[in-house]
Amino acid sequence: MATIKDIANKLGISVSTVSKGLNGAPDISEELRQVVLDTAVEMGYKTKKMQKQEHKKLVLFIENMDYETANQFGYEIILGFKQAAFRDNWEVVIQPVTPAFQANEKYDTYMLKNGYSGAFLVGFALHDDWLSQLSTTKIPTVLFDNYIKHNPLVGAVGTDNFEGIEYGVEHLVALGHKKIAFLNGSLNSLVSDQRQEAFVNCMHEHGLETPDSLLAYGFYVADSAKYHVPGFLSEGATAIMCGNDLIAMGVIAECQNRGFKVPEDISVIGFDDLPISSHLTPPLTTVRQDRTELGKSGYYTLNSLLNKVSISRTTLRAQFINRKSTAKAKERSLS
Amino acid sequence: MATIKDIANKLGISVSTVSKGLNGAPDISEELRQVVLDTAVEMGYKTKKMQKQEHKKLVLFIENMDYETANQFGYEIILGFKQAAFRDNWEVVIQPVTPAFQANEKYDTYMLKNGYSGAFLVGFALHDDWLSQLSTTKIPTVLFDNYIKHNPLVGAVGTDNFEGIEYGVEHLVALGHKKIAFLNGSLNSLVSDQRQEAFVNCMHEHGLETPDSLLAYGFYVADSAKYHVPGFLSEGATAIMCGNDLIAMGVIAECQNRGFKVPEDISVIGFDDLPISSHLTPPLTTVRQDRTELGKSGYYTLNSLLNKVSISRTTLRAQFINRKSTAKAKERSLS
Repeated sequence: MATIKDIANKLGISVSTVSKGLNGAPDISEELRQVVLDTAVEMGYKTKKMQKQEHKKLVLFIENMDYETANQFGYEIILGFKQAAFRDNWEVVIQPVTPAFQANEKYDTYMLKNGYSGAFLVGFALHDDWLSQLSTTKIPTVLFDNYIKHNPLVGAVGTDNFEGIEYGVEHLVALGHKKIAFLNGSLNSLVSDQRQEAFVNCMHEHGLETPDSLLAYGFYVADSAKYHVPGFLSEGATAIMCGNDLIAMGVIAECQNRGFKVPEDISVIGFDDLPISSHLTPPLTTVRQDRTELGKSGYYTLNSLLNKVSISRTTLRAQFINRKSTAKAKERSLS
Repeated sequence: MATIKDIANKLGISVSTVSKGLNGAPDISEELRQVVLDTAVEMGYKTKKMQKQEHKKLVLFIENMDYETANQFGYEIILGFKQAAFRDNWEVVIQPVTPAFQANEKYDTYMLKNGYSGAFLVGFALHDDWLSQLSTTKIPTVLFDNYIKHNPLVGAVGTDNFEGIEYGVEHLVALGHKKIAFLNGSLNSLVSDQRQEAFVNCMHEHGLETPDSLLAYGFYVADSAKYHVPGFLSEGATAIMCGNDLIAMGVIAECQNRGFKVPEDISVIGFDDLPISSHLTPPLTTVRQDRTELGKSGYYTLNSLLNKVSISRTTLRAQFINRKSTAKAKERSLS
């Protein structure tokens, strides 16, 4: 476990300043206090109160999402959740789950026998066993990118997908693109449904068509580009919006393999803004989901439910990141 | 200003217990602490820290909404906001505003010259001067029942109107109603638009029609019932959903004046659940908006924006309150 001295060394400040930050002393600025607390969480420091109160625990269940290293999507979500929970002295247990795990354990029973007061579920799919049990759970629970109807003890957090897709479409339309393809994420997920609706509505608002030949699902896998990009290109698409940055990487590679330059011939837009996306060739234009804020909002929403304030949904802003993978539309004769 | 002794007297506990609650001493339960804090806010108590830090101020602007007494819609919104802000030592100034006031004062300038760090706007309409200025403000601001696109410093809170209307429609459909009228709130407001969409979609999902003759706007005024109820009745409506409880009261009175019994002949559902609604004859079936939670969520959302977490929307659960103003549908011959 990290000590106060480790934190002081990392930040280049005195041990007493770290101590003041951890204890909320009045003669330290709120900004510095936040830096101290965030660093303490990142280094795995535990306060004495946390070490004593072994019963005060939250759990973060994670499925279908990479989170182990700083360049992966889930990493900062977990970090943000822990950082926000730390100020209220919660211990946070990270628990990866699989479909088999869910089949063997009832959600409520599992929570009770482990002494968890509440949970944050990240990366779950609509068909998961536990998701169907959440309509009736009595344990405060927050879902990332999913939504449960009618249960006031279950809340949701996510980025505003409508706003995010609108940013992308409007950027491409302003560059003169008319044939825009959309390689969305997973079929039958809340997030993909919202983005599909946003894409179709926004295109239609600009008087542009959305034929089936320019719409597909890439399941968040870069390799999916191989199956769909050839069709998009032969239909005359001059721009491709993607369900996440991984798909966008696959799309860029596939375009380049086929002799199309990005962005000169084809514009590509991602979604998420992974740490690697600014280092690609070309640097990726994308829609940012602030993962640290998503994690923190996950905790704030859970904390509200624990205090009997029935938040149903917390929606965060999407942010448009304009880099180098988009350019003015070029008229192309169909190949 | 209320003293610690006043709070102790009101709650029937000792002065030292109140003091412990106010100061967050470890030997008082979290539940009792919350009661002490909430009572302190309700009685207008100020901590020493609040009295000193005159610069740490938030403002709650209110327009077009009654809030002075406990039976009015805005009262608990304001109370909830103050209760949540109190724990972080914010002084909250309540500032009623009019269109003239807005025309004379630029929003940002007004905030700066009064030293307000952030604002909660309640009861504003889409055409208000200030609402158009909020697209570019740099001051953290939260709106109740309104929404501003693209500005990450402006958030929104409100009840899930879709869920609320669905509860009402599904309740009436289960009772066998087919001709259901909807006397909505104000034309061209975010809330009314959402409820209209929810009503029409939910009716169509059940295979029921929504002719224009059964849809109208009542502008949250009880007297509006006089203009629209006669038409609804002559079209054969057996149930009327209303944009708020005040409209529902007008609708019930108008039905009774015309010799129709509620709920035997006509079922009526309100929206809001005002304190008076359980005391009406018949007690009103309605959709509850928890105003204290809305106020608290307003503060939590503002606090997130002040801490640079860009919450775009916080949505609270609607709650269905089944009382006595609805009953099984009765076949009626048209008059």
